[in-house]
Amino acid sequence: MIGELGPKARAAAKALREASAETRTAAIRCMAAQIRARAGAILAANAGDVAAATRLVDRLRLDPARLEGIAAGVDQIAGLPDPVGAEMARWRRPNGLDIARVRTPIGVIGMIFESRPNVAADAAAIALRSGNALILRSGADALASARAIGEAISAGLAEAGLPEAAVQIVPIPDRDAVGAMLAGLDGAIDLIIPRGGKSLVARVEAEARVPVLSHLEGICHTYVHEAADPDMALEIVLNGKMRRTSVCGATETLLIDRAALPMLPAIADALRAAGCALRGDDEARAVSQMASTTEADWTTEYLEPILSVRTVAGLDKAIAHIALYGSSHTEAIVTGDSAAAARFLAEVDSAIVLHNASTQFADGGEFGFGAEIGIATGRLHARGPVGPEQLTTFKYQVRGTGQVRP
Amino acid sequence: MIGELGPKARAAAKALREASAETRTAAIRCMAAQIRARAGAILAANAGDVAAATRLVDRLRLDPARLEGIAAGVDQIAGLPDPVGAEMARWRRPNGLDIARVRTPIGVIGMIFESRPNVAADAAAIALRSGNALILRSGADALASARAIGEAISAGLAEAGLPEAAVQIVPIPDRDAVGAMLAGLDGAIDLIIPRGGKSLVARVEAEARVPVLSHLEGICHTYVHEAADPDMALEIVLNGKMRRTSVCGATETLLIDRAALPMLPAIADALRAAGCALRGDDEARAVSQMASTTEADWTTEYLEPILSVRTVAGLDKAIAHIALYGSSHTEAIVTGDSAAAARFLAEVDSAIVLHNASTQFADGGEFGFGAEIGIATGRLHARGPVGPEQLTTFKYQVRGTGQVRP
Repeated sequence: MIGELGPKARAAAKALREASAETRTAAIRCMAAQIRARAGAILAANAGDVAAATRLVDRLRLDPARLEGIAAGVDQIAGLPDPVGAEMARWRRPNGLDIARVRTPIGVIGMIFESRPNVAADAAAIALRSGNALILRSGADALASARAIGEAISAGLAEAGLPEAAVQIVPIPDRDAVGAMLAGLDGAIDLIIPRGGKSLVARVEAEARVPVLSHLEGICHTYVHEAADPDMALEIVLNGKMRRTSVCGATETLLIDRAALPMLPAIADALRAAGCALRGDDEARAVSQMASTTEADWTTEYLEPILSVRTVAGLDKAIAHIALYGSSHTEAIVTGDSAAAARFLAEVDSAIVLHNASTQFADGGEFGFGAEIGIATGRLHARGPVGPEQLTTFKYQVRGTGQVRP
Repeated sequence: MIGELGPKARAAAKALREASAETRTAAIRCMAAQIRARAGAILAANAGDVAAATRLVDRLRLDPARLEGIAAGVDQIAGLPDPVGAEMARWRRPNGLDIARVRTPIGVIGMIFESRPNVAADAAAIALRSGNALILRSGADALASARAIGEAISAGLAEAGLPEAAVQIVPIPDRDAVGAMLAGLDGAIDLIIPRGGKSLVARVEAEARVPVLSHLEGICHTYVHEAADPDMALEIVLNGKMRRTSVCGATETLLIDRAALPMLPAIADALRAAGCALRGDDEARAVSQMASTTEADWTTEYLEPILSVRTVAGLDKAIAHIALYGSSHTEAIVTGDSAAAARFLAEVDSAIVLHNASTQFADGGEFGFGAEIGIATGRLHARGPVGPEQLTTFKYQVRGTGQVRP
C-alpha cells in the first residue's frame, strides 16, 4: 500500500521541478480555494476525529475560523518568492567557463506529524513553494481531518495542472508506515521532517536512514551580562520566558552574571507577577526567594511557566554552561558591552544567537522567511528556521564554448 | 581505544572554531613544513607499507617527489580564503532586528580512506582551512604511512598553538573502528566522508548513522545534440572520455542524437585512435563498427578506456536516459542551440550539468575551490565538489536593541 506512494511522489517531483513558478503559485492558491470550498467536508471529518479523540482535543479541533486561518496561511505562502532556479552564485574561470550555483528542489519530502491538522496544509504549501513533492503521515487522531484536507489539496493541484500525487497523505493509521518512511520508501524519500512531541522526534532521529531536519528540544538560555541595561534585561527575560511558554524558542534557563545579581530581584518579581515559578541556585536564592534547582533543571525543557536561574562568574562561564547543557537551538545575551556581545555571538555554537533581543524571535516568520516548516538544530544543510529556501538544494550549471581539460 | 578519539576531537573542534583564520593558516603552513622536515621518517614508514602490500602498490608508494607534491598541496590550501565567519546574507527586519547568516565549521569530520597516503595530508589541510577537527581512518595497507604523516601534522598543529588532536589518525587497523565511526563515535562525529573504492563507499552509505558526503559512482554522460558543432563534439567527447579514464567525471556513455549520427564515425575514429574500445546500440553500429551493448552497459562505470554509445531520438530521450541510468554526478550537452542547452541545464537533475564543455571539469580545482575533499552526489548540504566552503555550516546572529516579541 505505502509502497505505491514512493514512485508516484518521485514522478510528481519531476513535474514540480519542471513547472514554472507561476504554475506552483497558482496551485497553492487553488489549494487554499479548495480548502475553503470543502470546508463542510473537512469540518465533518474533523468532528469525527474529535469525537474519537481522548487527548489533545484542542489541538485537533477545527472550526470555521480556524479553517479560514489555515486557508489564509496557504494563500500567504503563495505570495512568497519562489526559490527554485535562483542563482546563489555565479563566476567565470580563467579558461572562460561560466559556473552558476542554482537552487533546485530537494525532491520528495516525508513529513510525519501528530495531531494538528493545520500542519498538513502548511507543509503542503511550503513544499509546493519550494518545488518539492510531499508524503504526509498524520497521527491516527487527526487522520480523517488530514485526509479531507489532502483531498482539497489534490483537487487544487489538479486544477492547476499539477499531479495530484505531489502531496499524498498516507491513507492508513499504520505504525509500520512510519518505519517504511524512515527507511526512505526504497529511495523515494530524500528528507524526513518530523513535527510533533519529543518521543516522535526522538524516534525519527534514532531510526531514520535518510537525512532529517528536526529539533528534539529547545533548551534556550538568556544570559544577563554585568553590562546589561536593567530594564532591557527585565523585558527580554520576561518576554523570552512568558510570551508563550510552549514554544521551542522559550527561554528555559536564565544565566545571571554574578555582577548582575542586583538586577535579579526585579526580574524575578516581574516573572512571578506574570505567573512564572522560579528555581535558582544558592546565589540566586540569596537575593530573591525561589525554589532550589537540581542538576536536572539545566537539561529540562519545561515548556511551562517555570524558569531555572543559574549564577555565572562571567562570560566564559555562561558560554561553558550553554555548551554543556544547551540543545544548540537559541540563546540570547543582554549587555551594553559590544565586545562581550561579539564574543557571545561568535562562540556560542547554537543555530540562533541573539544580542539584546528575546529568544522568542526564533521563528521563520520573525526572520522574514514568510513561513517555516520547523526549526533544525542539526549541523548539516539547514540550521534554525526551515522555510521554502531551506527546502532547496543546488546544482552547478557550467556554460562553455568548447572547453576541454588539458 | 577508539572511544578516546571522540572527546579529544570535540575539544579540538572548539579550539579550532575559536582560533583566528591567521592561526589556522599558520598551522597549515607548519603542517607542510613538518611533512618536509620528517620526509625521512615518512618515506621509511611508507617503505614498510609498500613491502607488506600485495595490491595497489603504486597508489601507496611515496618517493621524495611525491612527498614534496603532498607538502606543496598543503601549502597551497594555506593560501585559500578562510570561510569561517563569512557573512552569507544579512538583512534588517521592520522591527529593527539585524539578522546575519554566518558560516561556522561543521565540527568533527570523520574520514575513511583506503590506500592513498596523500589523502591524509589533503584532508587535514582542508579540514583545518574550514575550522573542522578530523578523525582519519586509513586502510591497513597505508596505516604506517598515514601515522607518520599524522605525526607531522600533529607537530605542525602544536607548533601553531592548536591542539594536536585537531587531526587524529585511528592508530589501529581495526575493521570495527569503521563501524564505530559510522555510528558517530557517541555523537562525536558530525559528518562522514569516505574516499576510496565502491565497496567502501557503499558500506559507508548503507551503514552510517551520521550524515555522509559521498558519491558511489560517476556514470557521466555526454549528449551530442543535432545542433552540435562536429569538431567541438569530437573534442569534448574525446576529452570527456580519454583525458583520464579513471576519474569519476570521465564520460562513460555517449548519447548521440539520431540527427547527429553523421558525426559519429569521426568521433569514433578519434576515440579508437586514442585507444578507446567502443560499444554501441544498433543505430550506432550501423554507422561505425563497434561491439554491441547490453543493458548492463548503461549502468556501468567503466573507469577504463571503454565508451558505450546510445542513439537517442531528441533532447527529451537524452534527458530520460540520464534520469533512468545516471548517477546524478556530471552530464554535458554539446549543441549550438541555446534553447536546447537551457532545457538540458534546467532539467537534468545532476550535481553538475555542462554546456559545450568536457565532463572532466567535474573537479573542485577546476571550479576554483582551490582544493576538494571529494565530490557529493547526495541532495542535502552539498552537491558537486566539496571544498573548504562546503565543509561549513551556518548560524544566525541576531542583533537587537532590546526588542521583545509582541
